[in-house]
Amino acid sequence: MMSLGACSRLTINRSALRENYRFLKSKVGAGCDVASVVKADGYGLGIDMVVPAFEEAGCTFFYVAQLEEAMILRSLTPHKIAVLGGLPAGCEKEFKHLNLIPVLNTPDEVARCPDDIKSIWHIDTGMNRLGLDPENVPELLKSRPAPLSLMTHFSSSDEPDQTPSRKQVELFDSVAPKSIPHSLCNSAGIFRDASWHRQQVRAGLALYGPNPTPETINPMRPVVDLSARILQTKTAKAGSTVGYNRTHTFERDTQIAVLGIGYADGFHRAGSNKSVLYWNGVACPLVGRVSMDLVAVDLSPVAANPPHEGDWMEIIGPHQDADQLAASWNTIGYEVLTSLGGRAERVIIS
Amino acid sequence: MMSLGACSRLTINRSALRENYRFLKSKVGAGCDVASVVKADGYGLGIDMVVPAFEEAGCTFFYVAQLEEAMILRSLTPHKIAVLGGLPAGCEKEFKHLNLIPVLNTPDEVARCPDDIKSIWHIDTGMNRLGLDPENVPELLKSRPAPLSLMTHFSSSDEPDQTPSRKQVELFDSVAPKSIPHSLCNSAGIFRDASWHRQQVRAGLALYGPNPTPETINPMRPVVDLSARILQTKTAKAGSTVGYNRTHTFERDTQIAVLGIGYADGFHRAGSNKSVLYWNGVACPLVGRVSMDLVAVDLSPVAANPPHEGDWMEIIGPHQDADQLAASWNTIGYEVLTSLGGRAERVIIS
Repeated sequence: MMSLGACSRLTINRSALRENYRFLKSKVGAGCDVASVVKADGYGLGIDMVVPAFEEAGCTFFYVAQLEEAMILRSLTPHKIAVLGGLPAGCEKEFKHLNLIPVLNTPDEVARCPDDIKSIWHIDTGMNRLGLDPENVPELLKSRPAPLSLMTHFSSSDEPDQTPSRKQVELFDSVAPKSIPHSLCNSAGIFRDASWHRQQVRAGLALYGPNPTPETINPMRPVVDLSARILQTKTAKAGSTVGYNRTHTFERDTQIAVLGIGYADGFHRAGSNKSVLYWNGVACPLVGRVSMDLVAVDLSPVAANPPHEGDWMEIIGPHQDADQLAASWNTIGYEVLTSLGGRAERVIIS
Repeated sequence: MMSLGACSRLTINRSALRENYRFLKSKVGAGCDVASVVKADGYGLGIDMVVPAFEEAGCTFFYVAQLEEAMILRSLTPHKIAVLGGLPAGCEKEFKHLNLIPVLNTPDEVARCPDDIKSIWHIDTGMNRLGLDPENVPELLKSRPAPLSLMTHFSSSDEPDQTPSRKQVELFDSVAPKSIPHSLCNSAGIFRDASWHRQQVRAGLALYGPNPTPETINPMRPVVDLSARILQTKTAKAGSTVGYNRTHTFERDTQIAVLGIGYADGFHRAGSNKSVLYWNGVACPLVGRVSMDLVAVDLSPVAANPPHEGDWMEIIGPHQDADQLAASWNTIGYEVLTSLGGRAERVIIS
């Protein structure tokens, strides 16, 4: 339901979520499972909305980062749920009762995990983030019941040069027996080498629309539109400034629009004097600092056919995707998605 | 209740909220009301927690940015609620039924506002953001019933040089009759000139702990502590890299900790290779990129007495305030507060 009072609006295309899942499934073929990563509230889109969409497309395996996320997810699906953040000491009961799969990252977790909790083991092949030292894996495998699967995570699969990923796969294969299922690929990895698909891939970013392989045209369907309402238009006089600490000065009398979105909505302050918003497909530059609840844009590029108070301008949509907006904030599409929309009205298109 | 599985924890000191309100009240004296700005979910701390705390300290007037925020706030308080974002066309009924005060920013809003809805008029004296052109104010005041108050908003009250603020006050006073109450000051403005206090100040940032006057020692009490749990410690080998896209290389074998907080928790990716986390009061540098759910820190500075898996490190607390963390993200304490804590466990200290 659209609200007359909303200041920003996040439109989520549910069928694009389904199509993106099916497209990734078609890339990996019948022998390989596509698990959906739905951590961070479904990459910011709403876990309660994305999970049923992926289920409709055939997904039966989900990954989250934290136990609390898994507790919420268990109320949404009967399917497999794995928790990337490991098995916190003292939480074995929760994993058991909710039938959750811990991803074990440390020797201590491997030792502590009760035999009746099925686990995934994470081998750190180069991220230096979570995961077991490859050197320890053969010994650990002898000491404990075999895990459901062995996984690793690529550090650089979004780069054109796949030398680092290839080294990671070699190291993984040197310690991971073929008798246990493997899971190597994140979204970008899926597109890099079919021999890396193995028994399961873990799709995250690409499901939500951003480009998993930035050097090529984006093969994914966009999922998210974001727009903001114009609360006021006005003429800023020549020589006047706009916003906090007067960071932009108008050279001539300039028509501007003030819109109801700011950094409290996840529109990063890093976009001050850098981002653009679109009106009828024409880019209008953001002027001055991004405030907590407001931004101002220069309407000069659309002077012939300007928007009016109450109109909505495009922030993410046909003319600017999350990756492009991210570039104006000096970051990546992932961070745009997960930061957006706390106060935005949400409109779901099926 | 503390959860064993939580990966990050936001501790909010309710008595500090009360003390900060009372301190600001003591600055302005008996003839001036201190309204609390609680937009953006109470600057990210939780509107349902901060509003009762300010009420206990004597607050009877609240400001939010948007109608939706006011609807939530009306369920929390019987006191006055003003909506900075104006009176959206078609929403007059909501304002009437919930007894909300629109802050009117445009001539159209002034013309549209029904006589039985009491309003505040916002005069734009230099922000070039929301508000009426001062030139139009005398005419509008003749055409309509007098508003409850007249307000303006400072662009630069956090700077040592108050020339811009002084000009704004002069312009405001040239069109605002003394017969109507005035509201000029945000948090910083309260500390700049007692003659600007008038009948009401609007306290935001300072209530929540960050420094309203950055060139002096912070007069406010800190409200927020943020910490993250160490999910894993490990030795990163000399020559190896850490995190996505290998942005940090270890010169020697280095003990690191991987913690359960990332940009999906509002820990901006801009802090990659820049921010520091504290252990026992010693700063440990963040190494590599901030991931969605994880950061890694170099434990070399605390090699003599290092933390272990399961320990919590300080992100905001006695050794690093929100403003300092903000500096490492190239932003301000406001954005830190409003971005933090979506997944963090919240602990309230009364």
